[in-house]
Amino acid sequence: MLRNPTFVEESILRKVPRWRDYLEAKLGFRNHWYPAKLSRELDEGAVAKVTICGENILLRRIDGQVRAIRDRCLHRGVPLSHKIECYTKDTITCWYHGFTYRWDDGALCDILASPDSRAIGRASLRTYPVEEAKGLIFLFIGDDGIAPAPFSEDVPPTFLDDDLALEGDSYVVASNWRVGAENGFDGLHVYIHRDSPLVPDTDRSLPIGHTAQSGDVEVIEAEGRPKGIYDSFANHHVLWDGAIGGEIVVKGVRSSRTDGSATRTTAASLWLPGVLRVDDFPDQDRYQFEWYVPIDEDHHYYVIMIGRRVSSEEEARAHREEFWARWKPVSLDGFNNQDIEARLALETFYRNDDAWLSEMLIEGDAPIVKWRELCHAHNRGVQSPENLR
Amino acid sequence: MLRNPTFVEESILRKVPRWRDYLEAKLGFRNHWYPAKLSRELDEGAVAKVTICGENILLRRIDGQVRAIRDRCLHRGVPLSHKIECYTKDTITCWYHGFTYRWDDGALCDILASPDSRAIGRASLRTYPVEEAKGLIFLFIGDDGIAPAPFSEDVPPTFLDDDLALEGDSYVVASNWRVGAENGFDGLHVYIHRDSPLVPDTDRSLPIGHTAQSGDVEVIEAEGRPKGIYDSFANHHVLWDGAIGGEIVVKGVRSSRTDGSATRTTAASLWLPGVLRVDDFPDQDRYQFEWYVPIDEDHHYYVIMIGRRVSSEEEARAHREEFWARWKPVSLDGFNNQDIEARLALETFYRNDDAWLSEMLIEGDAPIVKWRELCHAHNRGVQSPENLR
Amino acid sequence: MLRNPTFVEESILRKVPRWRDYLEAKLGFRNHWYPAKLSRELDEGAVAKVTICGENILLRRIDGQVRAIRDRCLHRGVPLSHKIECYTKDTITCWYHGFTYRWDDGALCDILASPDSRAIGRASLRTYPVEEAKGLIFLFIGDDGIAPAPFSEDVPPTFLDDDLALEGDSYVVASNWRVGAENGFDGLHVYIHRDSPLVPDTDRSLPIGHTAQSGDVEVIEAEGRPKGIYDSFANHHVLWDGAIGGEIVVKGVRSSRTDGSATRTTAASLWLPGVLRVDDFPDQDRYQFEWYVPIDEDHHYYVIMIGRRVSSEEEARAHREEFWARWKPVSLDGFNNQDIEARLALETFYRNDDAWLSEMLIEGDAPIVKWRELCHAHNRGVQSPENLR
Repeated sequence: MLRNPTFVEESILRKVPRWRDYLEAKLGFRNHWYPAKLSRELDEGAVAKVTICGENILLRRIDGQVRAIRDRCLHRGVPLSHKIECYTKDTITCWYHGFTYRWDDGALCDILASPDSRAIGRASLRTYPVEEAKGLIFLFIGDDGIAPAPFSEDVPPTFLDDDLALEGDSYVVASNWRVGAENGFDGLHVYIHRDSPLVPDTDRSLPIGHTAQSGDVEVIEAEGRPKGIYDSFANHHVLWDGAIGGEIVVKGVRSSRTDGSATRTTAASLWLPGVLRVDDFPDQDRYQFEWYVPIDEDHHYYVIMIGRRVSSEEEARAHREEFWARWKPVSLDGFNNQDIEARLALETFYRNDDAWLSEMLIEGDAPIVKWRELCHAHNRGVQSPENLR
Repeated sequence: MLRNPTFVEESILRKVPRWRDYLEAKLGFRNHWYPAKLSRELDEGAVAKVTICGENILLRRIDGQVRAIRDRCLHRGVPLSHKIECYTKDTITCWYHGFTYRWDDGALCDILASPDSRAIGRASLRTYPVEEAKGLIFLFIGDDGIAPAPFSEDVPPTFLDDDLALEGDSYVVASNWRVGAENGFDGLHVYIHRDSPLVPDTDRSLPIGHTAQSGDVEVIEAEGRPKGIYDSFANHHVLWDGAIGGEIVVKGVRSSRTDGSATRTTAASLWLPGVLRVDDFPDQDRYQFEWYVPIDEDHHYYVIMIGRRVSSEEEARAHREEFWARWKPVSLDGFNNQDIEARLALETFYRNDDAWLSEMLIEGDAPIVKWRELCHAHNRGVQSPENLR
Repeated sequence: MLRNPTFVEESILRKVPRWRDYLEAKLGFRNHWYPAKLSRELDEGAVAKVTICGENILLRRIDGQVRAIRDRCLHRGVPLSHKIECYTKDTITCWYHGFTYRWDDGALCDILASPDSRAIGRASLRTYPVEEAKGLIFLFIGDDGIAPAPFSEDVPPTFLDDDLALEGDSYVVASNWRVGAENGFDGLHVYIHRDSPLVPDTDRSLPIGHTAQSGDVEVIEAEGRPKGIYDSFANHHVLWDGAIGGEIVVKGVRSSRTDGSATRTTAASLWLPGVLRVDDFPDQDRYQFEWYVPIDEDHHYYVIMIGRRVSSEEEARAHREEFWARWKPVSLDGFNNQDIEARLALETFYRNDDAWLSEMLIEGDAPIVKWRELCHAHNRGVQSPENLR
């Protein structure tokens, strides 16, 4: 897949010293936790293949617990997934020569076609630490010999709260992950959602744009906590009318709700290693989480989870039913798909590394710049092609 | 599209000092006029997308006059053409954040989602000068701040004559533009047209080949006029029989006309920036014009116009009717499509830059070499990947 | 096809001094004989196109003898095969301008469209020495001005024996030729053939694996003879049961024959420039030959011939009938296709040059390493992109 040993040219990186690592991270950051799969997609005993930060990985659920190993035989490099052979619960055997690995530590424990080989017990496949929470399976894409970072530092605040019920779905999008993250966090881009079915369905307000001045977003970078940019829409300048030469040509939508309920998203925040939280979206008292997980240079895994605080299992069930009956068709497929389309258009530009030097950001893009700087300051390593060899 | 910052290697260019610029011009020459679209294809108010010399460009006809701007928003680089939004006659608005540009000067005149931005009025999209003549819309692909060259210097002599009625059609061909131009001007290549339906349809003569000796073509390079190579077939050595080891294996076709009318093409000429004129083709008293417009490295826009001198609107109408009833099926689709096929075969070789050093030209190719040298001497700049960033 | 002037990086080659040439030979070795086509596929007068070591070549059978020339006109590089024109038995004429070449020496003997050109008689296309034997047409892919090596040194011993009747078929496989050769010679990979229809059809034994210790293969490198690695399975450690943690999970198949006949392949040998011989395969007293001929970087031409010693024409005919009735469906399509599938999986890894440094070979791979070293020591030149220009 990545055949070119060069990556982002040094001459380009030098020009953005404040977010150099971010520009280099076309394959994402190492030593972070990423969602790999929805829990419901991996039954007991099942094996699934995923690609994160360019690394091909196999998952298997064993006695309820998910294990993850690299999907490449040590011997001659073939993908184990080419033909899955699991003869015991705890092992996977390569279809080619019978190299057999333990799911829990990746150890080469047997070679069916060569049981006396000295290699047995002396080599192992890369494994990936796994956490499972809130219906998502997370992997730690880490350097060898490095203890995984605390999981709770790589998800947005509130995501792990006990009273938060979550349900979601996922997509593969043909754009770089950074393009996904920036589009999602962009306060100006509501412009593209004017005709979304979500707007009438929720009787929500949708302005033409809203702008955070640079000073109005909060950079959260304390030790031992998630690192993110928090943009409270309360501080925004909100725009209802779009005018050309003074003449109004496009109008935002104002809610007709009269019951005093909040009619708009109240905040958006973007967290390392690439996950958005939108408060009071797709409607009041819901929280949307969106992950933009690097697959390869020009694809990302787009996971959307919608949460709601509940006080009983019945409320939790009602929330999950609402997700499938309402939010999946109206919001994910009716609103976020407009974002997916925008990312495909962005990718035509940003796939060239030097495009990042040619963009012309404006005042409302200040939160995006802060996001880039945050990534540069707090990432735990840039994924490089060397790690894929 | 063009991701590689290297272009044609210096070591290769050095070997052809007399036509170095031509070899480098895989994306064509800058500061020249190129046809972009047939007039009939752009109605009032319509928007069309074209690519010339690698540059993505949008056209719109406003009050009859065609305007052309770069198809890439200044802000985040998305194509405006991804979703056309024209709220006023004179502007186009980016679908993503409402950046609004004036068609006439490219100025960023409003941002719907950010009306207070300091960027408004301070930036502008690249625009392209437009000329429209004889049913074609021409653009000047020029450097910033350079006044466009006189339009009449970039079209073949006679093309703009008042009494010349023209009608034509266009194709996209998967070869470099230079391969198109050289095939069209090649005096030897009539060999491939032996079985064209045009030959019996016009009862024309078609030899196996005809050769201009080097000294017999005219190099036209006076100041202030079109620059071209003019090859009068009157001076040619004409060949009617193709023999192997003295035995005739292929015979040219001789006209059976007895009325004394000319039965053959009388001249071909090739003009900067890449346009052919063929006199008395596809028949006596017709003039064929062929443009080979660079799209990208391996595609060109192939425009064919057939002209005839007329003295009344009725004669002009008759000429245009003849084009569609006769020349389009018999000549464009029956003769020039053989050229298109040849260019696809040539492209397998010439797409490698060093192929231009491996060809083995012969005496009859002298006009092609003169064409290359003319281009080197008189082009107004080589298009480079930098201009596409 | 090969647009990149760089090939395998010097820094990678330096790391495998004992088989450096082999790693560099992604397009194969020069100055060797390769099969190009099955004899039965080229009738008298017919023309066929093949690609070997990246070189595009045309074949024609003339008075029974096969001639081979480069498939690229000297003039402007177009493929002669784009449209075959053979006006005389001994020549081929380029469809574009009538450049005419003699099949026997490649000489440019006429130009139909330019019969007076000084180029006639002064230039010639590259030709390729041809040998035809045992139903295969072989070409020598050689340097200019070098006499071809003796044909008998580039085929496995016994292949040319008078009493050996052969029949076969061919495939194009989307992997590098080296991946094909190594998979075929690999003693461990029988593991993948457990479920082949060949096993019950022949009532043969098929172990899980069998291992040659490094010292047990014979390196044949005497002057004036074929160069190869001979691996007698008699010396092998044979494995019948595949176990994980001591528990048997996969079992080999033991023949139930009681007539004392040999039930297994008795030897495999791999010869320069890339041809395998398997003794007593697909059954007792048969000999399978497999060529892995480089087409381009990621395709090889896979020729399988099955031989049997015969003492009459009747026996020869019976052997050929058996090939089509039995071995083609049961062995080629039922056993060797499993190898083809393995090569496609191997190619995902080995297409990256540096993968050859990342593999983890084990004891049973010793014969493969000896093969690489043999190639490095005895090849007659590495094919390079320069030869394709």
